[in-house]
Parts: sequence; structure tokens; C-alpha cells
Amino acid sequence: MKQLNVDLGERSYPIYIGSVLKQDGLLAKHIKAKQVCVVSNTTVAPLYLKLIRNSLPDHSIITINLPDGEEHKDLTTLNTIFDTLLTNRQNRTTTLVALGGGVVGDMTGFAAACYQRGVPFVQVPTTLLSQVDSSVGGKTGVNHAQGKNMIGAFYQPQAVLADTDVLLTLPERELSAGIAEIIKYGLISDAEFFAWLEDNMDALLACDKQALGHAIHRSCEIKAEVVAQDEREGGIRAILNLGHTFGHAIETAMGYGVWLHGEAVAAGMLMAADLSRRMGMLDQSVVDRTQALLLKAKLPVVTPAEITDKQYLSLMSVDKKVLDGKIRLVLLKGLGEAMVTSEVPKVLLHKTIQVSRLPAEQARR
Amino acid sequence: MKQLNVDLGERSYPIYIGSVLKQDGLLAKHIKAKQVCVVSNTTVAPLYLKLIRNSLPDHSIITINLPDGEEHKDLTTLNTIFDTLLTNRQNRTTTLVALGGGVVGDMTGFAAACYQRGVPFVQVPTTLLSQVDSSVGGKTGVNHAQGKNMIGAFYQPQAVLADTDVLLTLPERELSAGIAEIIKYGLISDAEFFAWLEDNMDALLACDKQALGHAIHRSCEIKAEVVAQDEREGGIRAILNLGHTFGHAIETAMGYGVWLHGEAVAAGMLMAADLSRRMGMLDQSVVDRTQALLLKAKLPVVTPAEITDKQYLSLMSVDKKVLDGKIRLVLLKGLGEAMVTSEVPKVLLHKTIQVSRLPAEQARR
Repeated sequence: MKQLNVDLGERSYPIYIGSVLKQDGLLAKHIKAKQVCVVSNTTVAPLYLKLIRNSLPDHSIITINLPDGEEHKDLTTLNTIFDTLLTNRQNRTTTLVALGGGVVGDMTGFAAACYQRGVPFVQVPTTLLSQVDSSVGGKTGVNHAQGKNMIGAFYQPQAVLADTDVLLTLPERELSAGIAEIIKYGLISDAEFFAWLEDNMDALLACDKQALGHAIHRSCEIKAEVVAQDEREGGIRAILNLGHTFGHAIETAMGYGVWLHGEAVAAGMLMAADLSRRMGMLDQSVVDRTQALLLKAKLPVVTPAEITDKQYLSLMSVDKKVLDGKIRLVLLKGLGEAMVTSEVPKVLLHKTIQVSRLPAEQARR
Repeated sequence: MKQLNVDLGERSYPIYIGSVLKQDGLLAKHIKAKQVCVVSNTTVAPLYLKLIRNSLPDHSIITINLPDGEEHKDLTTLNTIFDTLLTNRQNRTTTLVALGGGVVGDMTGFAAACYQRGVPFVQVPTTLLSQVDSSVGGKTGVNHAQGKNMIGAFYQPQAVLADTDVLLTLPERELSAGIAEIIKYGLISDAEFFAWLEDNMDALLACDKQALGHAIHRSCEIKAEVVAQDEREGGIRAILNLGHTFGHAIETAMGYGVWLHGEAVAAGMLMAADLSRRMGMLDQSVVDRTQALLLKAKLPVVTPAEITDKQYLSLMSVDKKVLDGKIRLVLLKGLGEAMVTSEVPKVLLHKTIQVSRLPAEQARR
């Protein structure tokens, strides 16, 4: 088992990576009172709820199973958590445990932030994507029909337990979606790690435990460093959103849940790389390596033909990074080096959107 | 104009009391960017929105009018704020201005806490109750069918502008409801102020500007001191809830909006005083003075006959102060001295509930 720390003063917390759910007393250590509410979904609960129960023999546990999928990440579903907590007379000492992927983690964290103005919570992410991204850093929230994650809070967990054993039951498509965010860390801040991913992609796709352990650890390490510098995203933290402004537009335009978040981010990162190259900041070779690595990870690199330029611009202009009406984008100025800019020539942005719809072998030349 | 400060480190902010909306540039000083969204309601906006517009000539202003009343303080109404913000492409630099009473302030503050994970907001409370209580201290939130203020956040405003001129248009019943919270400050921490209220109640009810200014200033001063010691209500802050556990039960049982919050708190404070006396902590004379002052302020001291003991206990057991299944109550150990306890003999609690239903002249003997 590996451990690292997210350093946020009095809000600091540990991340554990490995066969963590089998570690005696580890989860219990991070729960202060007797009352626990495990929030999970209809897919994950049948597989792993029992493990949680076993590791908390002395606690009083209630459970909530949310419907599975991004399309349920909204205020209505959130309210069902409050309903259950109140019906079961849960109070301010109750700890919420998020057992599931990013949707469960984001909603549980936001519910914890809001229930009686704040109760503690623990993240037990069960997808690769949530282990390397959403469970770390305290971003919680729900979607609005007009934009992803538009309603939420910065609210840090007591601990993150990333169990690598549970990834064995993950559908292939979700494994790839998680790898998209791992590739992101290479692109924004570690060229060596990017090269390691090029060499070890087959092992990751085969769920090799050593390879996954390393990739998750390095990803969380990079994220924890960035978050520790800028908890509430006043500056540097925005680089973690490489590909996300394009990606959110794709997710929203297609309807939540049609494209997985990681899939949309994959296509979006390639768009960001392409735009960086058109703006003269990035070598074509990095764009090519990015596309090749995404394809190797079985991720989409071509965007849906039905999303118009106008839709992209409209959806991108509600992005949380927008300032004074200007779209701000995370771009690359080298492999492992990201930057945020609102100085994007419109004509190049349109070109990037247009070529993103072409088959991989024709595009980005 | 008077000014005082809520001392919360980097979250500190000023409270201005007096003819503040006429002060040139005062509101603008606390708004950092150009975009402003004024959230008000259908009663207050026609009266005072123009004043706000006049004081922000260089800003781009959108407005949202919520339906008026506690019964609309819920997630559904909250979502209409998000709808409007997103439709109007408001971003993270937008400042929300809450122009209205406690319902508008609580919902606007919570919307500000959650929109894009947090935007700045300013409180412009237009009722006496919100000026002396809800606008100060950062408690924001909405109600749930199963309990008041069960969903919310601690989120501090940039400034509070309590304009005493606007109180002239306040209905008598709402003026009295505000006075209930003012009496609370005397009861929990300032016997001298309580005596001043006994002497000056007629002036307050006549909206004498000097008297109101003093009462608001002293109330905010007491609240600011308590909040500065305990922002997130880990301890001492709970004393601000004198009468609120009983009061919330009355409000919830009767249906939100039937009893005004201040009215329910008035009856609840008398119950707390009565229970304190039965537990041997408080002189009968303080109970009598409390009842007399509440009656002088035209506040209810008799609780609705239709609320059963069982309902009280059930509603009080979802109170946010409940710990390990025990109801915790704020009680008085003297005039101007409050305490929190979970050691309440059930038989005395029942007696207090029973006598609270009797006409004032029969009860509490």
C-alpha cells in the first residue's frame, strides 16, 4: 500500500493506494463518530458494499444507492440523499462514505458540504478515473442542464481510499476513460511520465497491478501538488482542466452520460494540443504522440459530427474559467508544460473544431 | 451611519447601519467586478431595486425576483437562481446582491456559495429580523420538508448594508418578529440591553430611528462577537439559537410561512425560559419579564394547540444541535447568560410544552 498526503493546512488528508479495503481498521481510523452513511450506486453496491460493512463492524451504517450515471448527477438526485439522511435522523456527526465513481464521489461530497451546513466524508473511489482525479482535491458538485458541475463546493474529504483491486471489475471503456486523465498529468507536467505511459500502456489496459499502482500514485502526486498550491482554483489549478472546456462542451451537447467524461476529455485534450500547435506554441510531434497514445488507450480522438461550431462556442462560454466574456483555455507550450490563456484567435479555434471532426488519419496536418 | 466589523481573518467584513443605501459609492466599494446579479423578491424589488441600480451606475446588472415567503425557501426556488445566472452567462466574478429579508438572504448566500463553487455576495437586508440576525454570520441555506435550514453552507458576505430607512415600510408583524431576535440578544448576553429594551419598546414599535439604530447595532455587535469566536458553530455559537429548537418545531409543524420565524422564536424563547426555571436555573421573575416584554412587543407567547407533544419531540430530534440522539437545548442560567445542555429531564420538557399552550395569564406558574 502506498500513501501520500494532500497538504492543505487544517484540511490536509491522506490518499491510500493499493489493496486498501482489506487493510484492517484503515477506513474506521478516518471516521470519528458511530454514525455512517454509505452512498453508492446500483452497480457498485452489490460488489463492494459488503467490504465496507466488514471494515466498520462497530458502526451504525445506513446506505443510499443512487441510480448509476452522469445523467443523474443533478439537484433532484442530490435531494434524495438529504431525504434519506433526514428520515434516518442523521446528525452533524454522521460521516458520509462515497463508494463509487466520480458521479457518486462528487454528489456525496457536495451532500456532505451542504447537509446541516457540513458533515465529514471519506472518498472510496471505485473507478480509475475517480481514483486519479475527482476524488482528490475537494471539487464537489452536480450538473445543471446548462452546464457541467455548475453547482457545487470546494469541500475536502477526511481521506481517500483508492483500492486497486476493485479496478479488476471495471468495464474496459471505463478503464480507458480513467487512463485519459492519467495521460493528462503527463501532458501538463511530466514528460517522463508521458513516455512511461507510452511504454506501459499495454500493462495498464491489462490491469497490471504494479503498473496501475504507479500510474495512480504519480497522477495523485501531481494533482496533490497543484491543489496544495491553489485549493480554490484562483490560478495554477486551472491547468488540471486541460481538454475539459472542449470536453464539457461535448458531454453537454451529447447529453450527459452518452460520452464518458474521460472520453470527452481525451478528444478535448487532442483539440487543445492541436490548437496549441496552430498557435505556434507546440511541436507537431507532440500532437502526434498525444493522438497515438490516446488511440493506444482506446480513447476517442474524433468529435461527433453533429456538434456545430456555434454549439461549441455557446457551451464553452458558460465554462467556469470564462472571465469578462472571454473563453479561457488550458493549452500546452511543450510536453509536460501547460498554460492558461484567453488570447485565442477565433479563426484558429474554428479550425481546431473543424478538424476535430475528421477521421484521425486526415486530421491535424 | 454606524459601522462594525465581523472579525473572521481573511473572511472578515463590515456591517453598516443607518441610511446606508443613500451613501454614495458604499455598495460599489464592495463589488469587485462589473457583473452584478440582484436577487430580491416580488414585494421588496418594486420598493428598493431602483436605489440599488442608482448606486451602481457603472455596473452591468441583472435581477431575479423570487416569490415572497418562507414556503419558497427550498431547492426548487434555489435552482431558479442558477437557471437565470446561467442563461445570462454569469461567471465566477459575478457578485450576487441579496436585497430582501432572511429568506432572500439565506437563499442568495447559499446560491453564491454553490454557483460555480463560490462567487462573492453582499447582504442588503430589508427586514429588521434579517438586519439583526440572518444577514450576519454566514449561515446560508434552504429548508427541507423534514426540517428548517437542513441544507446549506457557512459562507460569509463581502459586506452587510443594514438600511434603517427601509424599515419604515415594514409591516407591523414583521417589525415585531425582528424585535424577537433583538430581545434574544438581551436574554443570552446583556441584561442591561434587556432593561433598555423594556424602557424603549414603544420607541422601537414606532420605528424611532435612533432607537432602532441602537438596537440593531448592539444586536449585531453581540452576534459578531459570538460568530468571531466560533464561525462554524462547534460550541458557543449555539447560544444564538435560544428558542430556535422549539421555534423551528412550531414553524415546521404549522407549515413554513404560517408563523413568522421571529414569532416562533418568541414563543420558543419563553418555552426555553420556562424550562430553565423548572430545572431550577432561572428565577421566575426573569420568566415573567420575558413574557411581559414579548407581549409588549406584540409577539405570541402561546403555542398552537394543535401541535402534539409527539410532534414537538419528533421535530426537535432532527434539529442540527442533536448529538448522539440527545436533544440539545439552549437554556438560561440568568438574565444575560445562556448555556447549552443535553441533560433535560423529559418530564419537565413535557410540562413546558403543555403549559406553552395555555393562555398567558394561566401559564408558567
